[in-house]
Amino acid sequence: MKLRTSLSFILLSLSWAVNAQSHKSGIAVPSYDTSDSMLIRSLFDEALINGKSYEQLNFLCKKIGKRITGSQQAEQALAWAYGEVSKYGIDSIYMQSVKAQHWIRGNTERVAISGDADIQLNALALGGSVGTKGQLEASVVEVKSLEDLKKFSRSELDGKIVFFNEPMDKRKINTFDAYGACVSQRYNGAAEAAQYGAVGVLVRSMTTLSDNFAHTGSMAYRTGQVKIPAAAISTKDADILHQYILDNDAAIVTMNLNCYTVAGPAMTHNLIAEIKGSENPEKVIVFGAHIDSWDIGEGAHDDGAGTVQCMEVLRLFGVLGIQPKNTLRMVLYINEENGNMGGETYAQRVKEANEFHICAIESDRGGFSPRGFSIDGSPQQIAHIGSWIKLLGDYGLHYFQNGYGGVDIGPLKNKKYTVNNNIFLMGLYPDPQRYFDYHHSADDVFENVNQRELELGGASMAAMVYLVDKYWYLFGN
Amino acid sequence: MKLRTSLSFILLSLSWAVNAQSHKSGIAVPSYDTSDSMLIRSLFDEALINGKSYEQLNFLCKKIGKRITGSQQAEQALAWAYGEVSKYGIDSIYMQSVKAQHWIRGNTERVAISGDADIQLNALALGGSVGTKGQLEASVVEVKSLEDLKKFSRSELDGKIVFFNEPMDKRKINTFDAYGACVSQRYNGAAEAAQYGAVGVLVRSMTTLSDNFAHTGSMAYRTGQVKIPAAAISTKDADILHQYILDNDAAIVTMNLNCYTVAGPAMTHNLIAEIKGSENPEKVIVFGAHIDSWDIGEGAHDDGAGTVQCMEVLRLFGVLGIQPKNTLRMVLYINEENGNMGGETYAQRVKEANEFHICAIESDRGGFSPRGFSIDGSPQQIAHIGSWIKLLGDYGLHYFQNGYGGVDIGPLKNKKYTVNNNIFLMGLYPDPQRYFDYHHSADDVFENVNQRELELGGASMAAMVYLVDKYWYLFGN
Repeated sequence: MKLRTSLSFILLSLSWAVNAQSHKSGIAVPSYDTSDSMLIRSLFDEALINGKSYEQLNFLCKKIGKRITGSQQAEQALAWAYGEVSKYGIDSIYMQSVKAQHWIRGNTERVAISGDADIQLNALALGGSVGTKGQLEASVVEVKSLEDLKKFSRSELDGKIVFFNEPMDKRKINTFDAYGACVSQRYNGAAEAAQYGAVGVLVRSMTTLSDNFAHTGSMAYRTGQVKIPAAAISTKDADILHQYILDNDAAIVTMNLNCYTVAGPAMTHNLIAEIKGSENPEKVIVFGAHIDSWDIGEGAHDDGAGTVQCMEVLRLFGVLGIQPKNTLRMVLYINEENGNMGGETYAQRVKEANEFHICAIESDRGGFSPRGFSIDGSPQQIAHIGSWIKLLGDYGLHYFQNGYGGVDIGPLKNKKYTVNNNIFLMGLYPDPQRYFDYHHSADDVFENVNQRELELGGASMAAMVYLVDKYWYLFGN
Repeated sequence: MKLRTSLSFILLSLSWAVNAQSHKSGIAVPSYDTSDSMLIRSLFDEALINGKSYEQLNFLCKKIGKRITGSQQAEQALAWAYGEVSKYGIDSIYMQSVKAQHWIRGNTERVAISGDADIQLNALALGGSVGTKGQLEASVVEVKSLEDLKKFSRSELDGKIVFFNEPMDKRKINTFDAYGACVSQRYNGAAEAAQYGAVGVLVRSMTTLSDNFAHTGSMAYRTGQVKIPAAAISTKDADILHQYILDNDAAIVTMNLNCYTVAGPAMTHNLIAEIKGSENPEKVIVFGAHIDSWDIGEGAHDDGAGTVQCMEVLRLFGVLGIQPKNTLRMVLYINEENGNMGGETYAQRVKEANEFHICAIESDRGGFSPRGFSIDGSPQQIAHIGSWIKLLGDYGLHYFQNGYGGVDIGPLKNKKYTVNNNIFLMGLYPDPQRYFDYHHSADDVFENVNQRELELGGASMAAMVYLVDKYWYLFGN
């Protein structure tokens, strides 16, 4: 780390003095020192007093709003972020072309239990779903899970609407574990049910709450398969439908969706901004978040929060005059929600340019109080990063465990793309209790983000980038 | 621990087997075992699936509401909690008489910058303040802190309203540290300013937010001193008043408060419920929260959350059939907010009855995601409890540090009362970022409490009570 300001000269001198001692011992273990404590303190101080994450999230949510890939708002968000980040004394900034699909919800979206009751259900088409081409009406059959589906015969489901009603397991302390355990009914439910001749799919929303918000999300069809429409219904409505099926001999549901995928690819972008490394400019530490969101709510936690936190990392490095050894690169990925073409394209370009990436860090678990990082790396890498609890514990960061990095950065570890077989991935791990209350719903709005929690996340990302940049060479992989 | 159910017999057998081994080694260190992991898992599972905290908090906030000591609602809340807790298979329950003061806000509360501007400020009289006896109008002088007050001469403040405008330090990661650093301007500001002949006091609200809510709180006068009225104003209005004073030669403020303290004591109660210990019924582990609140908002985080979490501890022990070795006693204290006569009276009764208390645990930092416990104990006690991170870390509990126990339980460690010089105190430590957004304001309402975060706190309290009951004898103090 080279530091640009006068305060930084003091920190640097301390760093030299203490490092010199630890180098004498010849131990290739972390040698963090007083300068690190002071610098990390200054990152958090700056974020808590002058942080821009909250103000910027307000703009992104309220002036731009929801921003699905292909929408005008997604491009507006990219242009806005370009303008904001350009002010932060970075070395370069550019847009990277990405081809992705543009899915449109359309203006009709109605799901109801038909008959005398005519109970309208709070529903949202799943992203990527085909429409119903007018009204679809069919008997509905409840299935507890993808596994449970296998117990049915084709004749039992042929011509039916299949209702996947597996709830998220509330007992999981990490709600992402509960999500991971049953999200496949949403992603693969339509493809699986179509194998049995089903004509439509309803899915219980992925949330531990009992509420009226439908929570959408991505789904996929199999190539060459009949595409059947799919929608999420709120958990309260899932319970109503479940009870209705129990209480009635026949349960008929109508679905009316006119969502569709635009023919031909949407031409869109990742936004990339860099601070060039002073010692190893060819080595890259990439950190990012996705700037696209679903087409409902405001994408505040998912992933406006990560977006503004990554922008804040660049601001913090700029305003504190921190010069990294390695190149720091922020990527705001497009299309995480429905296709991940932003992440795929970035990784492909890395491969083409033969760029060495030390690691990739992502923030895509909401703007809640940060508790640490999940690490997709070697045992040595995880142990080394975990030892930084001494520097980061005072800021509430105690969680440094083996785990998932993130959707956008995932391709960077794919053997198809990676230039560095020892690359490690990290995901910011905020407190996970509230995330799925808002996730992919109309309630994912700015008002549900807390300023201090959000700003602490940006500072945590900056501290992690700082430490990796300074000490990565000691890891020994 | 003796266990009452069949599941519990299995746990018990495991416990015996593993404990027998560790006893052979003769090491007086924690010997937690598989049965502990399983029991703690069952506490969290039960709280996350069937927990009653959220539902009960809803009742307390919405059907009873704010409940300042002496009010009808405070007595209603006690009666309601008595009825609820009685269902939980406890061994005894009773009300303990407490004498306290009853302060009433009254129906007039107006603070404004007078003159042509007539800017009304969002204000709340501080608890315990005298009224203004009609309208008080005087020049206002801004003072940065209690320390800053000492720079003024009597002639500069005589007949004036003193405006204490010290903000909470946003850089403190633990917001309670920021609160502790400047709350004395609220508590002692009027008493100090009166020494200089001031006729009234305004205090910047104790929150890191910039908002329009005034945050009240307790204050005290000195015996024999002239009592001058005091009110908190919102942080936004504090900034407006600050700017007005800068911009104008003279700043006149009017205060109109008709709050008062009722003559003679209010006769009120602590609620006490017990599960008798099977081995040492004469040794007590007390855990509690305060059932009173301020007379605005709903006292949801402060301390409805703690109240329902402590009730939940009893429910969890009951439903899981856990029989403690030592006596577990829940106390719902009255009057924490303005006088602490609940806590004082309880400690005095403990002394009178010569009751040995092992420890006291309190939940009074809001219903946020639990992160651990602050411990007011010996280094050995703290180290021993800290070693339980192996059992509790999976539930997000990583913080086991020296720190404050709580207002209600504080007197139990006072030499005046304690029967056990080695008593230790603990406070549940939830994530502290949002607490002062709501604290003592009209915004401390049920809607700002998250169900999972609240329920996790109750399970955390239960797990801590369980471990202390089982392993305290190993501490060696």
